[in-house]
Amino acid sequence: MATRLFSFLGGDAGDWRIDRMDAIVGDPLPVAMRLAVRDGSVESTDAGAVWRLLGITSNERYVTAHEKAQLVAKQEGLGRPEATCAALIPIRKTAEWWTLTQDERRRIFEERSHHTGIGLQYLPSIARRLHHCRDLGVPEPFDFLTWFEYAPADERAFDELVAALRATEEWRYVDREIDIRLTRSRP
Amino acid sequence: MATRLFSFLGGDAGDWRIDRMDAIVGDPLPVAMRLAVRDGSVESTDAGAVWRLLGITSNERYVTAHEKAQLVAKQEGLGRPEATCAALIPIRKTAEWWTLTQDERRRIFEERSHHTGIGLQYLPSIARRLHHCRDLGVPEPFDFLTWFEYAPADERAFDELVAALRATEEWRYVDREIDIRLTRSRP
Repeated sequence: MATRLFSFLGGDAGDWRIDRMDAIVGDPLPVAMRLAVRDGSVESTDAGAVWRLLGITSNERYVTAHEKAQLVAKQEGLGRPEATCAALIPIRKTAEWWTLTQDERRRIFEERSHHTGIGLQYLPSIARRLHHCRDLGVPEPFDFLTWFEYAPADERAFDELVAALRATEEWRYVDREIDIRLTRSRP
Repeated sequence: MATRLFSFLGGDAGDWRIDRMDAIVGDPLPVAMRLAVRDGSVESTDAGAVWRLLGITSNERYVTAHEKAQLVAKQEGLGRPEATCAALIPIRKTAEWWTLTQDERRRIFEERSHHTGIGLQYLPSIARRLHHCRDLGVPEPFDFLTWFEYAPADERAFDELVAALRATEEWRYVDREIDIRLTRSRP
């Protein structure tokens, strides 16, 4: 069975060169030169990393069957040879967000912020994998890690996508966000 | 900050005497005499237990704001002196359940199975805490652990509650369930 758990290790090793790490809201992460994405839980001490973020893929939390069908019809997988750019965007949401009920969060997420609707506009150029961190049972600094891959020509579109999301009502509940941009380059 | 992570340890120690362990669907758990409920992740080897189940409390997944207000108005907390009976019910749901989208799962959970509606009928007698296990990042044998506490006089009501839930459409997606009944008795 394929793992659902992934370690993102910032340090001086890994297939991705870190081009920029911008703290959009809240504290930054320690500076690192390269990023390794590894299956399972890899300790940062084992990997010589300065930080390690852990996340797990899971079931859909907000998307409806109709929206999922639209996503599945358009989306591409990770690892396309031309997608040599990536972004890792860890975010944390406020305690207030987490006390909202499912219908309240859905209303903000989609009916008012159009999170999936915005994302759909950037398919298939931008491939994406969402990882959850909040219920891992070990203290993690973020609630979500989203990993994106795209071709260099789609970088401007990716900038537009993240700007559109940051302007939504949903993002008022984000109290920490780092935008890490990467280029694939085997060391 | 109070822990959200709990260990349920079956063995020969703990404040709860195990009266019955019935495998309702799927494989049973090894026989144990007592159950300890401990904060955080406690290894079964440290606690001399024959099994250890780990779960984490989390945000609401299905309940609406209206339903939550009804629950909060009626429910009681854990640890009432008169609630000397408890049940631990670990369940696992099928892969098919987990590939359903949020709206599909909500429709089965509440509109067709009335999960919250059934539970509401048994408040405030039966107190409850739900723990999630599926996204802990370590392999756990169940997806959910639900812990219930009630007075001996409410045992028949509790039996009715679990029978009503097991008769729902939602329970067609349950492929492993153990019903563990307990009495508080310090050893």
